[in-house]
Amino acid sequence: MGHSRINLSCMRPTEKYIRDNLENFKDEICEFLRIPSISTSPEHLQEMRKASDWLKSKMEDSGLEAEIYETPGNPVVLGKSLKAGDSAPTVLVYGHYDVQPPEPLDLWISPPFEPEIRDGRLYARGASDDKGQLYLHLKAAEAFLKGADNLPVNLIVLAEGEEEVGSPNLLPFIEKHSEQLACDIVVISDTGMLAPGIPSVLCSLRGLAYFDVEVKGPSSDLHSGIYGGPVVNPALALAHILAGLQDSKGKVTIEGFYDDLLDWGPQVKKQINDLPFNQQELEEFIDADLCGGETEFSILERLWTRPTCEINGLNSGYTGDGAKTVLPSRAQAKVSFRLVPDQTPQRIDELFRKHVDKVTPRGVEVTIKQLHGGMPWRAQLSDQLTNAVNSALKKIFNKRAVVAGDGGSIPIVRDLENLLDSPVLLLGFSYPGCNLHAPNEWFPVESIENGIRTIAHLYQEISLMDEIC
Amino acid sequence: MGHSRINLSCMRPTEKYIRDNLENFKDEICEFLRIPSISTSPEHLQEMRKASDWLKSKMEDSGLEAEIYETPGNPVVLGKSLKAGDSAPTVLVYGHYDVQPPEPLDLWISPPFEPEIRDGRLYARGASDDKGQLYLHLKAAEAFLKGADNLPVNLIVLAEGEEEVGSPNLLPFIEKHSEQLACDIVVISDTGMLAPGIPSVLCSLRGLAYFDVEVKGPSSDLHSGIYGGPVVNPALALAHILAGLQDSKGKVTIEGFYDDLLDWGPQVKKQINDLPFNQQELEEFIDADLCGGETEFSILERLWTRPTCEINGLNSGYTGDGAKTVLPSRAQAKVSFRLVPDQTPQRIDELFRKHVDKVTPRGVEVTIKQLHGGMPWRAQLSDQLTNAVNSALKKIFNKRAVVAGDGGSIPIVRDLENLLDSPVLLLGFSYPGCNLHAPNEWFPVESIENGIRTIAHLYQEISLMDEIC
Repeated sequence: MGHSRINLSCMRPTEKYIRDNLENFKDEICEFLRIPSISTSPEHLQEMRKASDWLKSKMEDSGLEAEIYETPGNPVVLGKSLKAGDSAPTVLVYGHYDVQPPEPLDLWISPPFEPEIRDGRLYARGASDDKGQLYLHLKAAEAFLKGADNLPVNLIVLAEGEEEVGSPNLLPFIEKHSEQLACDIVVISDTGMLAPGIPSVLCSLRGLAYFDVEVKGPSSDLHSGIYGGPVVNPALALAHILAGLQDSKGKVTIEGFYDDLLDWGPQVKKQINDLPFNQQELEEFIDADLCGGETEFSILERLWTRPTCEINGLNSGYTGDGAKTVLPSRAQAKVSFRLVPDQTPQRIDELFRKHVDKVTPRGVEVTIKQLHGGMPWRAQLSDQLTNAVNSALKKIFNKRAVVAGDGGSIPIVRDLENLLDSPVLLLGFSYPGCNLHAPNEWFPVESIENGIRTIAHLYQEISLMDEIC
Repeated sequence: MGHSRINLSCMRPTEKYIRDNLENFKDEICEFLRIPSISTSPEHLQEMRKASDWLKSKMEDSGLEAEIYETPGNPVVLGKSLKAGDSAPTVLVYGHYDVQPPEPLDLWISPPFEPEIRDGRLYARGASDDKGQLYLHLKAAEAFLKGADNLPVNLIVLAEGEEEVGSPNLLPFIEKHSEQLACDIVVISDTGMLAPGIPSVLCSLRGLAYFDVEVKGPSSDLHSGIYGGPVVNPALALAHILAGLQDSKGKVTIEGFYDDLLDWGPQVKKQINDLPFNQQELEEFIDADLCGGETEFSILERLWTRPTCEINGLNSGYTGDGAKTVLPSRAQAKVSFRLVPDQTPQRIDELFRKHVDKVTPRGVEVTIKQLHGGMPWRAQLSDQLTNAVNSALKKIFNKRAVVAGDGGSIPIVRDLENLLDSPVLLLGFSYPGCNLHAPNEWFPVESIENGIRTIAHLYQEISLMDEIC
């Protein structure tokens, strides 16, 4: 407790700076969110440039040395403060300044690039993902550098502009600049909290193996009356293949699918099931009954710790209005599996193909392409680092942090961990239902202050990991 | 044989007229085919009018009294010759002057409405279906009326302009004019021969029950990572429902599905299996192995005498390029059943709904709509009528006619039979592979002469059914 008090006293000027400048920070976030930095469409190249320039200039305002690095795609912006010296730990913050396209536009209550605050929510594309959250780190650093004239850790802020298009140029960039990106810990604020007021550290992500499955029959569509009967219907063959992937108890029936699963242990299971999770609330929010999958596991276990099989798309024959009596020449499905440790997209690829080979009926041909793969991830935080994070969170939220999982996949996390040989900490401040990748994306206004303060305290706590302030 | 000789001698002027005018007939068919009488698109209303006017004027040229009847849609054209008198039988010919849209246009070798003869085939939209074949009846009548100054039967030619859009106004028209449409037999030439040179009478059609099946889950698409596991995937639920409709032996698994099937008897079975059918030829033509369905039945039995279940279309979630990790909110299929006597679309509707109800998993809702229904049909030809048809065919093709079936559905056949209380004779002259409803539709040039002559002899033979010429 003595330790904690010393720490608090050191933070006074930093905390004051945040308090004094909070309104200004909110205005600045809005400035950032007004730039339509949509990386998926080539007509926004200039806006991407505008966003990276804005970011560089704000990094400099915050007291970081900043530089723009060209890549074959959108530039990487790198901000640094290495004043803490060799004996202090180095934190690398990863974030992205590009956003998802805002379509469909007519579903937005206020325009996606005209930020608006309603009911404590800041609405804009990129508010949560990730411009709003990346910005929090700049301001935490600024609060130290301008408010206290010191930053207790060495800081590297790595911001890319291609996360929403699969980060094609990031890994080569990291490999090329690995020496100047060397760090002790990677922090990413691109996720959310379990619920408002519940400080959360995200400790697992599922992996992904995503396939295109095409069943080919006759070389062109046939009349379903004239030829129906002895011709194998590719859409019906596809239905048989897909239905055979999962049994009525929610188990994936591919041989070997569960072979590589790690046991999460009774402690994690208990931790997960002790979380304040309201099933009915989630059911109302997504307007669906949570009665699917492996019902012997709790909802959160199913979401975070169990692999799944999903059909993401189906397409065959005639799908317009009315009746067209076509026997389709082909049928297509997008099929994906969420993976958990130690499943790998490569192994699932093998097992999936083998399974489909076995069940494909005569008379049709099946082609399978893996379109996307990502490794599952579990955090590898030392006790010391865990304590540092918990301590920072407790100061702001006055509550013990919970360990949360996420059913989604962020392949870059595992890549950063491997390439930088550092643990990754996922510490985000958005709330459930913040409409990521959807119309009316928002970020909680209270998370601006809570986020900046938590991050500042985290930097401080990390700096204390090896020595006392 | 004596009977046959008298008959032939009577036909001499008629036959001569056909011979002398054949080139002129070919030119006239092309004139008819040049009118783009596409009933499916409203922008061709004027062309529909042009086609009906053309038809009326040609009926008059042939010696029929012709009239155009307005309907809420495209007009009905009625041509008549009742000179044969009350003691002669009355033949009603049904045909249609509207055609399917020609798209995709780029697949046509010669433009769809610029008729062209290549390798003994007359290529044009409507050549087989049905303008080319309807025209044959006008010329057969003309050959009698102009070549011999008599027509041995009373003839009514009923031509509609909405067959390709489901004949919405035909049945009301027939009901309204039932007295003047009273007849002893209905003849339709809108089908084909089993193979070139093989005179065929089409004696069965399958019925149809066509459904739209929609599986609804969450009210909007969800992220398949964040929510995947406890949410029932509507596309996977649909796959289970569809796969459960047919077992691996090609049997429809809906309870009661086969209950109403009539036994066609060993004689029909033998007749069908004695037909000159070349499986390899058909497989090459449609580029598909004929290994599906109920393999304990022959290919032709499966095509003509057995009911089927087909998926005509599938649609769900994301189907574009690449990977989108969406858990779709809905999944849709077009599902249809071909029916055989005495199945009915009404009964199949009940059984299908009951079956789907039983297998639908919790967590999704299924909506089923029947979009289209048609009764199966088997010809009810008296021995006398059968003899008349066979005799006419034998004279032209010098071969015994075969009894063929067709796996498709022509609901109007059963409707005409019922409304006009007369047997329907399906006697068509196109060949397999003539690209009905597809690019490069064609009609065999030799079928122009063979068709007109066969029809003329048929009229003659029918007139002989009750008295000798």
